[in-house]
Amino acid sequence: MAQTVTPPRGMRDFLPADKARREHALGIIRASYAAHGFDEIETPVMEDAARLHSGLGGDNEKLAFAVMKRGLGAEDLAAAAASGDVLALADLGLRFDLTVPLARFYATHRSALPGVFRAIQIAPVWRAERPQKGRYRQFVQCDIDIIGEAGQLAEIELIGATAGTLDALGLTGCSIRINDRRILAALLAHWGVPETQYERALITIDKLDKIGAGGVAEELAGLGIAAEGIAETLESIANAGWELLDGGVPAWLDQEAYAELLTLRSALPEVELVFDPTLVRGMGYYTGTIFEIAHPDLGYSLGGGGRYDGMIGRFLGTDVPACGFSIGFERIVDLLPEDATSTADAAVIVHEKDALPAELMALKRQLVASGTRVRLEKRSKNLKALLERAEADGFTRFALLGHGVTDAGQLEFKPLGG
Amino acid sequence: MAQTVTPPRGMRDFLPADKARREHALGIIRASYAAHGFDEIETPVMEDAARLHSGLGGDNEKLAFAVMKRGLGAEDLAAAAASGDVLALADLGLRFDLTVPLARFYATHRSALPGVFRAIQIAPVWRAERPQKGRYRQFVQCDIDIIGEAGQLAEIELIGATAGTLDALGLTGCSIRINDRRILAALLAHWGVPETQYERALITIDKLDKIGAGGVAEELAGLGIAAEGIAETLESIANAGWELLDGGVPAWLDQEAYAELLTLRSALPEVELVFDPTLVRGMGYYTGTIFEIAHPDLGYSLGGGGRYDGMIGRFLGTDVPACGFSIGFERIVDLLPEDATSTADAAVIVHEKDALPAELMALKRQLVASGTRVRLEKRSKNLKALLERAEADGFTRFALLGHGVTDAGQLEFKPLGG
Repeated sequence: MAQTVTPPRGMRDFLPADKARREHALGIIRASYAAHGFDEIETPVMEDAARLHSGLGGDNEKLAFAVMKRGLGAEDLAAAAASGDVLALADLGLRFDLTVPLARFYATHRSALPGVFRAIQIAPVWRAERPQKGRYRQFVQCDIDIIGEAGQLAEIELIGATAGTLDALGLTGCSIRINDRRILAALLAHWGVPETQYERALITIDKLDKIGAGGVAEELAGLGIAAEGIAETLESIANAGWELLDGGVPAWLDQEAYAELLTLRSALPEVELVFDPTLVRGMGYYTGTIFEIAHPDLGYSLGGGGRYDGMIGRFLGTDVPACGFSIGFERIVDLLPEDATSTADAAVIVHEKDALPAELMALKRQLVASGTRVRLEKRSKNLKALLERAEADGFTRFALLGHGVTDAGQLEFKPLGG
Repeated sequence: MAQTVTPPRGMRDFLPADKARREHALGIIRASYAAHGFDEIETPVMEDAARLHSGLGGDNEKLAFAVMKRGLGAEDLAAAAASGDVLALADLGLRFDLTVPLARFYATHRSALPGVFRAIQIAPVWRAERPQKGRYRQFVQCDIDIIGEAGQLAEIELIGATAGTLDALGLTGCSIRINDRRILAALLAHWGVPETQYERALITIDKLDKIGAGGVAEELAGLGIAAEGIAETLESIANAGWELLDGGVPAWLDQEAYAELLTLRSALPEVELVFDPTLVRGMGYYTGTIFEIAHPDLGYSLGGGGRYDGMIGRFLGTDVPACGFSIGFERIVDLLPEDATSTADAAVIVHEKDALPAELMALKRQLVASGTRVRLEKRSKNLKALLERAEADGFTRFALLGHGVTDAGQLEFKPLGG
């Protein structure tokens, strides 16, 4: 029977060493975002099904876990069977991202929040994806969002806080790639693409990494977009970075977008900021600046975000400017060094089976009071295995408890490992 | 529209001040339990429905939120309608406590865990209870459990760690009431109650606070339990505490239970430990010691636990000794002082609308690097309201940014409030 007992499909347990590493990283992230002026909030893991399926979540809506109504009776089942509408049986669902809950939270509490609200959300989300390596059905997202700030200061504070947090985590070598949906629009306008075609054209440009500039030009031609020099322009700008702008405003770019990019760069001199005018990012809701965390050793991004002005106000029935940056916690925690957590003093006391509880507890009390983490271990035949496990769990020293020892000062500690 | 946007029924959002207080308390609890030698683990919020409904959860099983299977079709709905079996449509459920997941976790990972495993679980659980004041459908539980230790050292370490954690939280005046199911059994045996009646008799004794010793004796008589002096014995032992034992072994108690109680007391001299031989606690699965946190100003307990040897091994198919202590996080966090979190240095910089992002960010960077939490605020007509809100959010000082200030040393900070 034992071998069949597992967590639900696609979901994970965390054993002590993993859990400690995760909490350690989350502590650093929380403290760093707070230092940068953001305030953490929390929403319930469930939202009303109608809100989850209101169109704000894109394709992720299809991946939501549905929670059944309580007290369903024969009539409800018969009605659902007759209509074929499964979701009629569900009134709640587990959130699939933190943006839909944020929009709902903001609509509920707007009057109690500052005019410019800087939110931290660090919480699990659930998606019923086909389980595969590196994809989980429950995973943690770390989002920061600034709501109510239409100006560039929002983007700048978000990027600064994110870069500062990556530094605090000890994750070196990361860069932030940025672009702006309006820059992509300027490029498309320059090629004479009609606005109705922008969305499909962007989906194509998003494939640049995979199919190359020639492939993109070919696919655009298939859509009836066939301006002169598309492949050449894409090729020349894809990896040009800031050099593209340092000689002046390129022909396809307007003066305003140009000035904004330079402002952004000048405000973040400590950040390795890479301008990439071909960066698209998938989600349809972005309206302005978009950004992504790149790492030289990795073929995938470690997070991203952008401005999405139309969305947060949807449940409120009014327009509210908003911009957010999400880091991929599950990917980042895998990159952190194994021993990131074991810095505290931690001692194991190995005692005989018949040791007196009162004497053991007196020793433990003394050590805990002096700031030491303490584990009591009954002596077993395989002392070596016992000590190796304690070392793996982050303990740093141990003592064998002799008879009559009643003061921690009498314990002879030896280092574990080494 | 705005007034109808709320979190799901019976569930709560946490705004920044509340969230900060909760995280602060959770940090203290985590650190304290870790110092006492416990290791934190995490399980997914969902478990397979069959495990949740395996009988380990008592009445709480009925309160589980059921998660629908994905990809249900017309046939599934028709079959469910025909059978009337709603749960046939659900393969997962949200956990209603942390004990069923712990039993599942232990069955999955036993070979990777130490022989005596001291677990911390700090996580939300969900119950579809009828919403009422102080009862929520999502709430956090903080459990510690020791698995694999049959001896009293388990109870002693659990009570010591819990009392130490209440101290660390600054929650003074708490006491721990203890009893043992075997002591209750000795009492019932003394009255000649047959073992088959124990469960019903305990349910009656559990009402002592409400209906008094006379009421209990009357109800027991109704069950056919009518030994001499039941009311008098209950009356005399209910509030006697340790005095009952200090004169020697009472007539109804065996020598072994007596000796164990004295061992427990002697090992925990720092804990306000109250012996109450009439303490029952509701859950049916307790097999030995039981305990409860009492506070002189409160009519309810702040947590409790006990030994439940039969349960953790259920999914494993073998007997495993286990003992746990759970503190009621939602009740405890409400008792903590309001200002428990605002100790760090936190500064607001109020700037004009047209301030340059690069200059603002340079100041912010300097302050964050020196350990200050920083919030940038655009100057608004109502400066007073802006500063009051910042103070409520835990900020301690503010400066109005003058033109040409580019170094944090030039800012003139004034204290907020006071």
